[in-house]
Amino acid sequence: MIVGTVAFDAIETPFGKTDKILGGAATFIALAAAQFEADAAIVSVVGEDFPQEYLDLFVEKKVNIDGIEIIEGGKTFFWKGKYRNDLNTRDTLLTELNVLADFNPVVPDAYRDSDVVMLGNLHPDIQMSVIRQMKERPKLLVLDTMNFWMNNTLEALKLVIAEVDVITINDEEARQLTGEYSLVKAAAAIQQMGPHYVVIKKGEHGALLFHRQEVFFAPALPLEEVFDPTGAGDTFAGGFTGYLAETGNTSFNNLKNAVIQGSNLASFCVERFGPERMTGLTQQEVEARLLQFKELTQFDIELR
Amino acid sequence: MIVGTVAFDAIETPFGKTDKILGGAATFIALAAAQFEADAAIVSVVGEDFPQEYLDLFVEKKVNIDGIEIIEGGKTFFWKGKYRNDLNTRDTLLTELNVLADFNPVVPDAYRDSDVVMLGNLHPDIQMSVIRQMKERPKLLVLDTMNFWMNNTLEALKLVIAEVDVITINDEEARQLTGEYSLVKAAAAIQQMGPHYVVIKKGEHGALLFHRQEVFFAPALPLEEVFDPTGAGDTFAGGFTGYLAETGNTSFNNLKNAVIQGSNLASFCVERFGPERMTGLTQQEVEARLLQFKELTQFDIELR
Repeated sequence: MIVGTVAFDAIETPFGKTDKILGGAATFIALAAAQFEADAAIVSVVGEDFPQEYLDLFVEKKVNIDGIEIIEGGKTFFWKGKYRNDLNTRDTLLTELNVLADFNPVVPDAYRDSDVVMLGNLHPDIQMSVIRQMKERPKLLVLDTMNFWMNNTLEALKLVIAEVDVITINDEEARQLTGEYSLVKAAAAIQQMGPHYVVIKKGEHGALLFHRQEVFFAPALPLEEVFDPTGAGDTFAGGFTGYLAETGNTSFNNLKNAVIQGSNLASFCVERFGPERMTGLTQQEVEARLLQFKELTQFDIELR
Repeated sequence: MIVGTVAFDAIETPFGKTDKILGGAATFIALAAAQFEADAAIVSVVGEDFPQEYLDLFVEKKVNIDGIEIIEGGKTFFWKGKYRNDLNTRDTLLTELNVLADFNPVVPDAYRDSDVVMLGNLHPDIQMSVIRQMKERPKLLVLDTMNFWMNNTLEALKLVIAEVDVITINDEEARQLTGEYSLVKAAAAIQQMGPHYVVIKKGEHGALLFHRQEVFFAPALPLEEVFDPTGAGDTFAGGFTGYLAETGNTSFNNLKNAVIQGSNLASFCVERFGPERMTGLTQQEVEARLLQFKELTQFDIELR
């Protein structure tokens, strides 16, 4: 079960620009999770202007949309942004919260006993409201958040962090949250705040998974061209969580696999605008690229 | 056989500062290569002020120093630098070329048939002079260089690049050399210039090895604290080359291992000022950390 935004994005990169297209954290998370036998469902809100074809896309991907509330007369959350030449920095040109401003998520009864819950980037109070609606504590609670909530609602965010099993966060956010420059120290400090597992996303530089004294690293696949980074972090989180939902195994070794699965799907996401590449992705393509990840990282040194 | 600087460094980091200590590219390369059965030898130049104890250190590490010329009345190359808080940027406070200004390397007869030659960062004309002194083409020629030579002696540098098998270079330098932002495209362009293997060093973000359509990635080991990055790139190159000299195998699979060995040794180098950590490093410590590299990167996903 995924809570997060379902939105319109308008994106400009050095390679081109789009009009309003499908976007939002829950969209990317769900399309990635849909690559697995995970019985995915979205809890979100959209306006009356949200196209039926986008809703149909979710259904086609076997993503349950009973929890997507459609507000009559309302307008869907809209974000417009522009990436700089190195694609590492983006400027927000426009944010229209619209129906998101009053979003009060209602988890459908059928999903109040979900085993795995993915809290996409949202106001921490909304994330907490979803946790409170669960009949019992899910087996796995995964949280994504960002610096905006650290700047504006830190105390509420800390309450959510204290509840979850896994947090996914980028390197700068991990530093901001803890005041530690070293990511090893930052991950240790975050584990003190609650989560047993800390995933630090470093964009084109890969992702780190921390658990007690253990650490695992997954690189980003080196690509000829990154076309549009929008949604890469959410796609990572969706692949990570979807794989864990399918396998039902939360050992450290299986979380390593989940990090690879997330990185693998994110490498597709950045090849086209928005979720375009994810909507037609086949299992054959996914598995072929997993082999590339093996080639990229596996070695066999004989110790003396 | 290693050609490069043997020098004095004075280093300031957020954690402290040193007086003049042992430094120089060939120093770090040799101390790393000395971890392998590689019969390492340095070709370099120092002044009369260079302490006998530093020369003794090389001999103790079984590094041949017949090719280190001592200039009577001369002063040793001296570099003084200060790292900023993130340790990714450093400012040069002082560079005294001294005896390096007239360095005219003479390869000892006994090393003119070396199988493996490592050209440390130096003026490309000096690097070329060493290549020309070899009785026959070495089995493996490895080149390290930097942006300074791209800015000032690009044509001479290109002639050296055309001669070598492997180039090690950092990400910004790869972009500068080729005009390609994508490292995949940059590595392809550099292979067109000569080297069959391109190693792109990304500092704390690891290193990439490219060969035709193949690519391999080694992360930097996540450390609680990086104390002093000085010499990390040279230590990487020394571990990489020393391992290849010991094993005598230049297949892509063995170059993967060499990249891991280089990354492993570099992870020690940054733990203390200058080469301090490298001088007392034991084989047990090296092998224990290789196991950490395996833990850090190896996974086992079963494909469907």
